[in-house]
Amino acid sequence: MAILVTGGGGFVGLNLVEALLERGEEAILFDCSVLPPAAQRALLRHGRQLNVARGDVRDAAQVNQVFESHRIEFIVHCAAVTSGAAREAREPATIVDINVNGTLNILEAARTHGVKRVIYTSSGAVYGESLYRLTRLYEESPALPLTLYAITKFAAERICVRMSELWQIEVVCARLGTVIGPWERDTGVRDSYGTHTQLAALAVAGKPAVLTQREVRRDWVYSRDAAAGLVALIDARAPRHRVYNLSSGIEWIDPIRGWCEALESEYPDFDYRLAAEGEQPNIWYTDKDRHLMDAGRIAQDIGFTPRFGPREAYGDYLAWLRDTPDFFRV
Amino acid sequence: MAILVTGGGGFVGLNLVEALLERGEEAILFDCSVLPPAAQRALLRHGRQLNVARGDVRDAAQVNQVFESHRIEFIVHCAAVTSGAAREAREPATIVDINVNGTLNILEAARTHGVKRVIYTSSGAVYGESLYRLTRLYEESPALPLTLYAITKFAAERICVRMSELWQIEVVCARLGTVIGPWERDTGVRDSYGTHTQLAALAVAGKPAVLTQREVRRDWVYSRDAAAGLVALIDARAPRHRVYNLSSGIEWIDPIRGWCEALESEYPDFDYRLAAEGEQPNIWYTDKDRHLMDAGRIAQDIGFTPRFGPREAYGDYLAWLRDTPDFFRV
Repeated sequence: MAILVTGGGGFVGLNLVEALLERGEEAILFDCSVLPPAAQRALLRHGRQLNVARGDVRDAAQVNQVFESHRIEFIVHCAAVTSGAAREAREPATIVDINVNGTLNILEAARTHGVKRVIYTSSGAVYGESLYRLTRLYEESPALPLTLYAITKFAAERICVRMSELWQIEVVCARLGTVIGPWERDTGVRDSYGTHTQLAALAVAGKPAVLTQREVRRDWVYSRDAAAGLVALIDARAPRHRVYNLSSGIEWIDPIRGWCEALESEYPDFDYRLAAEGEQPNIWYTDKDRHLMDAGRIAQDIGFTPRFGPREAYGDYLAWLRDTPDFFRV
Repeated sequence: MAILVTGGGGFVGLNLVEALLERGEEAILFDCSVLPPAAQRALLRHGRQLNVARGDVRDAAQVNQVFESHRIEFIVHCAAVTSGAAREAREPATIVDINVNGTLNILEAARTHGVKRVIYTSSGAVYGESLYRLTRLYEESPALPLTLYAITKFAAERICVRMSELWQIEVVCARLGTVIGPWERDTGVRDSYGTHTQLAALAVAGKPAVLTQREVRRDWVYSRDAAAGLVALIDARAPRHRVYNLSSGIEWIDPIRGWCEALESEYPDFDYRLAAEGEQPNIWYTDKDRHLMDAGRIAQDIGFTPRFGPREAYGDYLAWLRDTPDFFRV
């Protein structure tokens, strides 16, 4: 029995596929683009446990083809465009098509082929305006999505819930917090490139980082925790809810400075400094400070608690950089 | 300068086109199906003020074609599938396509052709769960859409707001309450046929109505008020908000019994009674009782207040039935 990971070549997807392979699962990595060499190397050593299928979630025939050669028990649907404003202005229909219609194709395949459970990777972005208005985000807090990314993720999440009732299929949605960690890269559909990844790329390349004066307040979630949470939602006997926050649930203190110091310990020549008056930083920061996504429901219902705080995350991330020296050099 | 009404052959669309023609506007009725004879008769007497264009909002080329022959100043986008559960289970992708992608096509046309303002007819259904949890629905109340209809209307509404920022076009969304009145019919994409319409059809056909024991609590809005509210949003100088409730804002007392009595006054043979123990009613009722949609914002910002309470609405509705005897007989 296999687990299908759509968008398996993306940021969260690669972390999840790696986690699944490491615990001995058969995983099908479904993605529209070719894996980067470093990911191929890391994953292909698992041999026949891994199947890579090239395809587009917008194409129902391509999705269904995967089911012809494998018996799929679970689907984790990660494929999405993580769009920024420029892309949203340029090609809104494509974003809707991938994020909404693509999800519907996956649900339809799950129904047709009798999949046991679909895990939909939603996003904390669906809270939208509430991320800035409320002091703590619970799964029941109002969602007022602002960007096309958030609007389409919310629509897809609600469609998951609706179709699960109408079609009697099991779907659980995980609203991911802001993920940092290994395997984030420019896939062509990921516009909001994380601050940590940008800093890592500069450190590896031996280039200086010019930071803004502002630190970022955020309940980051380490990518291996995001993957572990998704695995927990696969394993859960009978989730009581349809929607779970999947974030660290704690605010990381000085995450940018902390990460710069960690990088400096590994790359002693790494030069980082705050931008001088009038100087342009060369690091893109995540949007406005958000409030915390509460991590209580997934802990209570599913028994999942994140393992990685900043210290553990940075240690693991540096080890990964050491093992994957070519990732940012392609 | 013309006003384009998409879905102009639908329930709200016909009421709006009629209102526009009556005050001397040039209206373009864009619809995918042919007008019923009674509507043709009522509208075509306005001569060259009316243009009827056959087309599908999913087809950008068909939408754009309308702009080649007319100079369009405003668009009121009413075209949508008003889907029920059976259709949602059967063809979810079509519903998403019409309600979401269709809206995106309209916004794109508005941008390309320099339309002054788009009025999007959203729905009180977007409040979803909140309609039952909260005692009064304000535009800022949490939206938790439940059905695919509500999910796609909310997504389209949020897309209107997002694209209006990104593309610098003006869009105002009207969340319609539960509309009753003339011109409601089975268009092929309207599954939630109103209780009042069903009763009118039975009365006209000389058939008895068997009611449930339950009365329906609802802040109905008469279709001519819905049309007048949309016209007010066209006329408004500079709406302060992007979203307005458009409902009566008051609870109608005993609306089913009241309408039966009104029908009986016009059709003395009309027989209506409550279902006996175990008997199946022949009238489909609207879903669970909802709470009121507050009508304060549109009154304050736009100066629009509904004119029709139950008494005025039933009087006007009966007069329309008198003038349009063939509507339910086709």
